[in-house]
Amino acid sequence: MKQLRYGMVGGGPGAFIGDVHRKTIRIDNLALLSAGCFSRDAEKSRSFGKELGLPSERVYTDFAMMAKEEAKRKDGIQFVVCVTPNVSHYEVCKAFLAEGISVVCDKPLTWTIEQSEALVALAKKKDLLFGVTYTYSGYPAVKQMRHMVESGALGAIKFVNGEYPQGWLAAPIDEESKLAPWRMDPKVAGISNCLGDIGSHIENLVATVTGLKIESVCARLDRIVEGRTLDDNASVMVEYKGGAKGLYWSSQIAQGNDNALRIRIYGEKGGLEWSQEDPDHFTFTPNAGPQQKWSRGRDEFCEEAQKYSRIPAGHPEGLFEAFANIYKSFILALGKKLSGEALQSSDIDFPTVEMGLDGVVFINKCVESNDKGSVWVTL
Amino acid sequence: MKQLRYGMVGGGPGAFIGDVHRKTIRIDNLALLSAGCFSRDAEKSRSFGKELGLPSERVYTDFAMMAKEEAKRKDGIQFVVCVTPNVSHYEVCKAFLAEGISVVCDKPLTWTIEQSEALVALAKKKDLLFGVTYTYSGYPAVKQMRHMVESGALGAIKFVNGEYPQGWLAAPIDEESKLAPWRMDPKVAGISNCLGDIGSHIENLVATVTGLKIESVCARLDRIVEGRTLDDNASVMVEYKGGAKGLYWSSQIAQGNDNALRIRIYGEKGGLEWSQEDPDHFTFTPNAGPQQKWSRGRDEFCEEAQKYSRIPAGHPEGLFEAFANIYKSFILALGKKLSGEALQSSDIDFPTVEMGLDGVVFINKCVESNDKGSVWVTL
Amino acid sequence: MKQLRYGMVGGGPGAFIGDVHRKTIRIDNLALLSAGCFSRDAEKSRSFGKELGLPSERVYTDFAMMAKEEAKRKDGIQFVVCVTPNVSHYEVCKAFLAEGISVVCDKPLTWTIEQSEALVALAKKKDLLFGVTYTYSGYPAVKQMRHMVESGALGAIKFVNGEYPQGWLAAPIDEESKLAPWRMDPKVAGISNCLGDIGSHIENLVATVTGLKIESVCARLDRIVEGRTLDDNASVMVEYKGGAKGLYWSSQIAQGNDNALRIRIYGEKGGLEWSQEDPDHFTFTPNAGPQQKWSRGRDEFCEEAQKYSRIPAGHPEGLFEAFANIYKSFILALGKKLSGEALQSSDIDFPTVEMGLDGVVFINKCVESNDKGSVWVTL
Amino acid sequence: MKQLRYGMVGGGPGAFIGDVHRKTIRIDNLALLSAGCFSRDAEKSRSFGKELGLPSERVYTDFAMMAKEEAKRKDGIQFVVCVTPNVSHYEVCKAFLAEGISVVCDKPLTWTIEQSEALVALAKKKDLLFGVTYTYSGYPAVKQMRHMVESGALGAIKFVNGEYPQGWLAAPIDEESKLAPWRMDPKVAGISNCLGDIGSHIENLVATVTGLKIESVCARLDRIVEGRTLDDNASVMVEYKGGAKGLYWSSQIAQGNDNALRIRIYGEKGGLEWSQEDPDHFTFTPNAGPQQKWSRGRDEFCEEAQKYSRIPAGHPEGLFEAFANIYKSFILALGKKLSGEALQSSDIDFPTVEMGLDGVVFINKCVESNDKGSVWVTL
Repeated sequence: MKQLRYGMVGGGPGAFIGDVHRKTIRIDNLALLSAGCFSRDAEKSRSFGKELGLPSERVYTDFAMMAKEEAKRKDGIQFVVCVTPNVSHYEVCKAFLAEGISVVCDKPLTWTIEQSEALVALAKKKDLLFGVTYTYSGYPAVKQMRHMVESGALGAIKFVNGEYPQGWLAAPIDEESKLAPWRMDPKVAGISNCLGDIGSHIENLVATVTGLKIESVCARLDRIVEGRTLDDNASVMVEYKGGAKGLYWSSQIAQGNDNALRIRIYGEKGGLEWSQEDPDHFTFTPNAGPQQKWSRGRDEFCEEAQKYSRIPAGHPEGLFEAFANIYKSFILALGKKLSGEALQSSDIDFPTVEMGLDGVVFINKCVESNDKGSVWVTL
Repeated sequence: MKQLRYGMVGGGPGAFIGDVHRKTIRIDNLALLSAGCFSRDAEKSRSFGKELGLPSERVYTDFAMMAKEEAKRKDGIQFVVCVTPNVSHYEVCKAFLAEGISVVCDKPLTWTIEQSEALVALAKKKDLLFGVTYTYSGYPAVKQMRHMVESGALGAIKFVNGEYPQGWLAAPIDEESKLAPWRMDPKVAGISNCLGDIGSHIENLVATVTGLKIESVCARLDRIVEGRTLDDNASVMVEYKGGAKGLYWSSQIAQGNDNALRIRIYGEKGGLEWSQEDPDHFTFTPNAGPQQKWSRGRDEFCEEAQKYSRIPAGHPEGLFEAFANIYKSFILALGKKLSGEALQSSDIDFPTVEMGLDGVVFINKCVESNDKGSVWVTL
Repeated sequence: MKQLRYGMVGGGPGAFIGDVHRKTIRIDNLALLSAGCFSRDAEKSRSFGKELGLPSERVYTDFAMMAKEEAKRKDGIQFVVCVTPNVSHYEVCKAFLAEGISVVCDKPLTWTIEQSEALVALAKKKDLLFGVTYTYSGYPAVKQMRHMVESGALGAIKFVNGEYPQGWLAAPIDEESKLAPWRMDPKVAGISNCLGDIGSHIENLVATVTGLKIESVCARLDRIVEGRTLDDNASVMVEYKGGAKGLYWSSQIAQGNDNALRIRIYGEKGGLEWSQEDPDHFTFTPNAGPQQKWSRGRDEFCEEAQKYSRIPAGHPEGLFEAFANIYKSFILALGKKLSGEALQSSDIDFPTVEMGLDGVVFINKCVESNDKGSVWVTL
Repeated sequence: MKQLRYGMVGGGPGAFIGDVHRKTIRIDNLALLSAGCFSRDAEKSRSFGKELGLPSERVYTDFAMMAKEEAKRKDGIQFVVCVTPNVSHYEVCKAFLAEGISVVCDKPLTWTIEQSEALVALAKKKDLLFGVTYTYSGYPAVKQMRHMVESGALGAIKFVNGEYPQGWLAAPIDEESKLAPWRMDPKVAGISNCLGDIGSHIENLVATVTGLKIESVCARLDRIVEGRTLDDNASVMVEYKGGAKGLYWSSQIAQGNDNALRIRIYGEKGGLEWSQEDPDHFTFTPNAGPQQKWSRGRDEFCEEAQKYSRIPAGHPEGLFEAFANIYKSFILALGKKLSGEALQSSDIDFPTVEMGLDGVVFINKCVESNDKGSVWVTL
């Protein structure tokens, strides 16, 4: 396949996550950065674009103009990566979709449910691909677990325990006020900090592996460290359509945890457990027989998980590789589509805009539950 | 100290837990089995008592008569161990307390809150010692963690995550009907199976380590395997007096877990984590600096934890030793009391009847919450 | 079976290991302490025996007299437990064997090969049982691994890695001179400290699980901390009869390890790994398929391992229980023998005097190898 | 810094390791692939070079010509990456050094000691940079451990245990004869398979972290699976200059291990332990106090380790990132050098050609020791 061309909105000098997107796309090199709008500050955007090797005419300071101009070019970008602050995801994505350009956007997709619904509808109407970078879904072990659930190795799923404890906000931050602007100020961060930022990864990961749809939630969002205006700890009881149950916990005050996303999935025939900090392994325990430790790259892995392994078992793959897998799947699907081939459902092996919408609904409904006194709210 | 004399009610031939009580008392040998009422079947009780080396006149078939007769003897028992099915704990304990005999009883203490309150009142009125065998509180690591909380190493406790997953009831049991009589029949097992049997250990363990008192709960009790009449999985959101929060999960359908009781405690200054399946170790992570792995028997352990270590670090101590520690503390306190010495609060280093009551309140209020639709209920 | 009667030589007030023997025998209560020679100091022995509840006429100050007197009594002891310093094992064991009394002795059995050979011959001639308390062989997981090797699950064993690192002697001991008398003084500790004390456990554990016999060794014994007169670290390359190879490492200066005995066994069809600090579990990895984590008490365990489990999976059993298992097997075999029944080879499920001899040969040959410049020495 | 230009020799279509080099260089994008000689087959080399986006005049079929041509160009490559089979490393590296082009070469550097010595001398004479891709030295945790040793946190190092077990060759390979050509055929693989391929990583990793130099070795190289012509398992006793001791074990028949490189380092003041399969963490246990678990990205890491972290603690970095770190350091140093700045010793933060030579000496001396009957051989 020929390398595709992509553009980026956001991700200017010093922006952590924009750099990660560029680095991880380069690993497989299936797409080339060809245009960008890295900052609203014209000088910043221009000099950064130059540093990245872009011709000056393809470095923009206005994302709307970028969408328009790139759509006109014969060698225009084939997809855009949106890594702006959450608050502007909606406008950016809408602008590119409107011009017929496919999109990859950071999560959470938007602030409001309505905005996400609009993006889902627009992407569908325009027949464009739209990926949302729920990073952790890219790990081969996650794909293997999904395969085991789909193929019936666990029977019907009955209970899920998802947790995502971090400890980095356990103590008051010296510059809590500085941290605030985008973490703790509702005008920037939206309606939730902890649940919105990391709790939503649990929601997506469980949905990815099990396919379960949430029916209702009972949520408690805590502001543990005094003075915080948004949650730094969150507990959610979940009911899924069809009767399965779940329990989610996310936290930024759980000292002793770096980034300890973990899911445990229990079905009629056995249980699965996976921890993001040891991403190459998971355990599967059937109802009869000893616990099994599965290891990425060993022969047991199915083809659809194995194809994302770049190195043999025991040679650790990390977050960058998971990220690169999302792009690999997205770009290969887009390339196929652009070449006129029909996409199979198995080609869409990345988190979609519909999943992005599900995440936004989850966050909003949990906040609603909490605000009403931690009562049950139907999605 | 001279060996004390104890009696046992329940724990006849084939009874698992009665045998554990006798074995673990023998480890330190601070008390000698001197009387028993092992079964309502006279022949069974007699032959079993003989096997245990008891003189026939001290083997009873009626616990009330045993209480009366032993109270009269000069060499009568100084405490009784009650290991009957939960349903009869109340009557047995009451009978011995009434005769002035101290008691050790299995958990949960009773079915109803009123019964437990009555036992608390009676023990107090009679000035007797009353221990409840919440096994896991006996581990030296638990005592060390309690010390660290008490001494302020964690600052104020803010959030607690307690879980107790097991997998042995994940599949329908062949003789589900056989299992029922004491597991799943409300007439025998009481109002809860999973939460009552193992969830209550979380409640006690958290209380032991942190001293936190529960103010309200929001609980969901699930019957995951079809046809069960009582819960086999339970989630509880907890609010403590003073503002701390908690989240408890217990399960018997979590395949891949044998007996994985675990608590994680987060305070202003750091976090603790302990797993019952690796009882000699826990981690402490201060807000600054790397995570610390503490190991029973090493010099870091405080005196009040160290005194329960029987063998050096790295030589595993297990459940029997934890059990023996409860008896060690109970018997030493009782011996001191019987010898006329005044007890210090530090002498009462075992789960008390008041803790037994707290456990019964917790179970009852969780069931109430669940029955009302998983709403918040104040304790 | 009726409780047997046993005596003890050594294990007086303050003696750690003697107390462990008594405690662990009491767990199953299959034998009753009936006589003892706890100290050469008559007063000490007498008062300690009284404390243990022995009649004064059965408390001795001379082990030879004890052997003679007990052999004469109708209710004399049926076996003796020798827990004296290593230097006197030989004389004590010989005295009791000579009087027809079975023996359990601590390891290492004796100092010299000749002494051990003499005990093997005498036990055989007198047709007596003789157990050596290599503690770690008592764990149910060890018995399960032995079963898996015997039943061919691993195919022929090809390579073994055994290690036993401890860290407690990493720093010079303040009272290194005090420690010396029995640790570091060749007149008391014998020819080796680290290899003799803990390295010998590797040798026994590997022999127990695999049945392999050592043909030759190349050993290096290090005195890492300056001023030590005996080894505190030891490496041994091993060749087994039949062509398998091994590598053993024991250390007391490996800071970060409490008591980390571990064996890894590799056969044609798969590998086993077990760590003493997590004694209830081991892993088995067949050549095809994922790694399996076996857990004591689960249904996969074979009958001959399962019978030593006292509590369900996930309820930790520790060193005391392993110790008790050695006594359980020894006492049941002795009871059967004394009742006139013929013993099956499966009844001898404890480390024998022949294994004790193997251990002494191993230690002596390793020291010889080291003294010659770490060259190969045939056993 | 401006992107450098590099060329590659080897790494054609289907070549695993060449692809890894290119991918990991792209992560930081500090150098651009500008020329290559990917295969001796002209058509293969040309079409592969085209696929990689190279102009046809810079795709070669003869490495010697490539060295000459590139040296002449104004925009010629500034360093070459040699990823050919080991047998040709020497000739390739020599050719480029001779033309004044810096080199990065896979390990082991060469077959013979003489060849490696010649490369060391030539690099020095030409004043060129020469890196050897001992991958595992690139992990930030390795750099942090090195820092702790250098800064005295462990005191003098006394004993090192290094091991590298894999299990993928545990069973005879169906196409053992196919595997042979480069694994097991001495004409291709050289004098050792297991020790040469993976054992040498232990040697380099220990040297990197501790700075210790090997004085003598006693090695045993086993051919465990029948019919193999080269070793698949190796044990080495090591003596370092200055008196410290070591024990190394590498294996490809240790079923249950994927790629379990691990080092344990013991000094006067404490111990370190690191496992490659969990590369972001290591433990440090000081002589006093509990064991510490260090985690990449947390504040405890020193600046010289921290600078290689790309993502926060708990977000796993893997082998690709370690590899990228070697290139990052090499390219930054080369850029500095080419710009005329003087290099500090801290700039040379990658495995050098001298370390490559040490590795070749180690392999050759171990083979010599083994061939003489596993006797001690001085380096």
